[in-house]
Amino acid sequence: MAKPVSIDVWNPNGKYRVVSTKPMPGTRWINLLVEQDCRVEICTQKKTILSVDDIIALIGDKCDGVIGQLTEDWGETLFSALSRAGGKAFSNMAVGYNNVDVNAANKYGVAVGNTPGVLTETTAELAASLSLAASRRVVEADEFMRAGLYDGWLPHLFVGNLLKGQTVGVIGAGRIGSAYARMMVEGFKMNLIYYDLYQSTRLEKFVTAYGQFLKANGEQPVSWKRASTMDEVLREADVISLHPILDKTTYHLVNKQTLSMMKKEAILINCSRGPVIDEVALVEHLKENPMFRAGLDVFEDEPYMKPGLADMKNAIVVPHIASASKWTREGMATLAALNVLGKIKGYPVWSDPNRIEPFLNENAPPPAACPSIVNAKTLGLPVSKL
Amino acid sequence: MAKPVSIDVWNPNGKYRVVSTKPMPGTRWINLLVEQDCRVEICTQKKTILSVDDIIALIGDKCDGVIGQLTEDWGETLFSALSRAGGKAFSNMAVGYNNVDVNAANKYGVAVGNTPGVLTETTAELAASLSLAASRRVVEADEFMRAGLYDGWLPHLFVGNLLKGQTVGVIGAGRIGSAYARMMVEGFKMNLIYYDLYQSTRLEKFVTAYGQFLKANGEQPVSWKRASTMDEVLREADVISLHPILDKTTYHLVNKQTLSMMKKEAILINCSRGPVIDEVALVEHLKENPMFRAGLDVFEDEPYMKPGLADMKNAIVVPHIASASKWTREGMATLAALNVLGKIKGYPVWSDPNRIEPFLNENAPPPAACPSIVNAKTLGLPVSKL
Repeated sequence: MAKPVSIDVWNPNGKYRVVSTKPMPGTRWINLLVEQDCRVEICTQKKTILSVDDIIALIGDKCDGVIGQLTEDWGETLFSALSRAGGKAFSNMAVGYNNVDVNAANKYGVAVGNTPGVLTETTAELAASLSLAASRRVVEADEFMRAGLYDGWLPHLFVGNLLKGQTVGVIGAGRIGSAYARMMVEGFKMNLIYYDLYQSTRLEKFVTAYGQFLKANGEQPVSWKRASTMDEVLREADVISLHPILDKTTYHLVNKQTLSMMKKEAILINCSRGPVIDEVALVEHLKENPMFRAGLDVFEDEPYMKPGLADMKNAIVVPHIASASKWTREGMATLAALNVLGKIKGYPVWSDPNRIEPFLNENAPPPAACPSIVNAKTLGLPVSKL
Repeated sequence: MAKPVSIDVWNPNGKYRVVSTKPMPGTRWINLLVEQDCRVEICTQKKTILSVDDIIALIGDKCDGVIGQLTEDWGETLFSALSRAGGKAFSNMAVGYNNVDVNAANKYGVAVGNTPGVLTETTAELAASLSLAASRRVVEADEFMRAGLYDGWLPHLFVGNLLKGQTVGVIGAGRIGSAYARMMVEGFKMNLIYYDLYQSTRLEKFVTAYGQFLKANGEQPVSWKRASTMDEVLREADVISLHPILDKTTYHLVNKQTLSMMKKEAILINCSRGPVIDEVALVEHLKENPMFRAGLDVFEDEPYMKPGLADMKNAIVVPHIASASKWTREGMATLAALNVLGKIKGYPVWSDPNRIEPFLNENAPPPAACPSIVNAKTLGLPVSKL
């Protein structure tokens, strides 16, 4: 006999049955669904990643929509099961949806939602956190202290570097890369060098204006430039943060050869995607260059690390927590729930999935729209006017 | 027979004998002394804190000056030994000099140097590092990852908080507190509340101007206020950083009662002096409030921690590394060496010990002055004109 599945049920008599494969942060998303006559079922099974069979069991015979996770395999099998159960909508609680076979969803007419527009600042702040922790060797210093090894102040103990006046290099100056660049320039008076296929006029405008602000207030201004090649960034920057999309052109962008271009004491941050770095080459580089430091939120073989990385004191490794602020995670849960609810209620799709502030305002009911449906066009869904 | 003392000697035939009780970062300080005809002896003994007897042995029969550390006991015994050996100058490689009995130094006519003016930004950056690491739970997340416990992305894993839009509270808005406040306001668009006995007009000018800068560029401005009581800061701030001096009025400023005023999920940072916090009360508070977080660089019984602190996952503990950037530590070594050299050569004392940039310019010889002598007035030393 199969094991029972643990579930929390809210509003048992609701008209629409909505399933969340995981407990999600906050309660606003639950309240919004319950207020609109949904029965909400939340799987509380102690299992990190649910299998396709687990999710089929959750969907059951009658299910209007599912909120799922990036770790689940949403393909033909699940979309056909959801469709048989009368389901109209699925939403990832994530921006990415490489776990979703959108063609399969299209085939069954299921809307696929995601949650952009709410991760930018939180992700940029994690990149800044890792940059600062690496610059001052906070994790290894904490381990040393906690182990009781500190027996008195010493001139050479955990000497790191001062960010002020150093150069921050940003590769990929989209929303997250630009937000990170501003944090480091405005917060720490770093000079900026960035590389992107496209000119980031908005970022340039801000760092120019900030330099003028410093000058007007009698301080040393900061400088910035757009690099014509990525190598220029790798050679010149003291702290390098990676914010490109992952595709063929950025796979293993950081490798043995590009690592060798960087300063011996450079800091490398990755909060984008694991395969942007050749992790085996990075481990080797960290071993050979004890003052080179890395701060990593993502890994090539996530959830695993390449051999040796866990032993490197000059690396900081965190488990894909770039979006892990209360504000963002509760926002993601809300947006995912509203994607599913909106489709069930027949609402149109919001016209700009990156400008979703009205859905996150806790003091007003959300707009009658699906915040972000990736296959809206294919399914011919109507678009809401802002 | 006593054990031999390990020493590195530079320029053995130098006219003046200068002893450093520890190896210090960088080489500029050595070069500056050697160029001015000093024989430099650096104690390389593997012992964290040298005893008075160790230092007497180092001073020997003939010694013109000593560069020492905050951990050493510079009182009557050592100053009389230094004086007998013909010594004229001692400098701590530190701003603080509570390890020095200045009256004893005065009695023997020995100048006492320290190294202010070079720690501000580095200390403030450590406070910012600890603030960001605590807000995103970087140390506990790293430990979890390194232990191989990560088996897949989860909505609730290490959820921290977004700094943007939250309030940073600064207690003690002197040079370091103000620099930290600006990092958090300008870097992370935090609102500021500060408490200080004196109005910090310079800080207020900057945060006002920065708010105007944001507004002029179409962004949400930041707000600031000077609190009329410290309690106001404790109640309102999401991140509280302590930057007071340590005296009777600030001893155990953070205690059971003041901790109870803070938000349950507040972050408390201390890069000032250990006894500003009642550490036993803090451990208790951390145990009872798992989402309260602390980032500590200093401890009441340094180098030791109060029982239980090392086990708290919601604390980050680092071994007094606030000044540990390469730039600052090399600067401190240079200033300490120039204090000793200047007195030996009969140079006047620099008029503003906080404006010591000319001494740190590696492309020009330093001014013919002692950067900072704390008993200059008592000894009647001449003051250099800027």
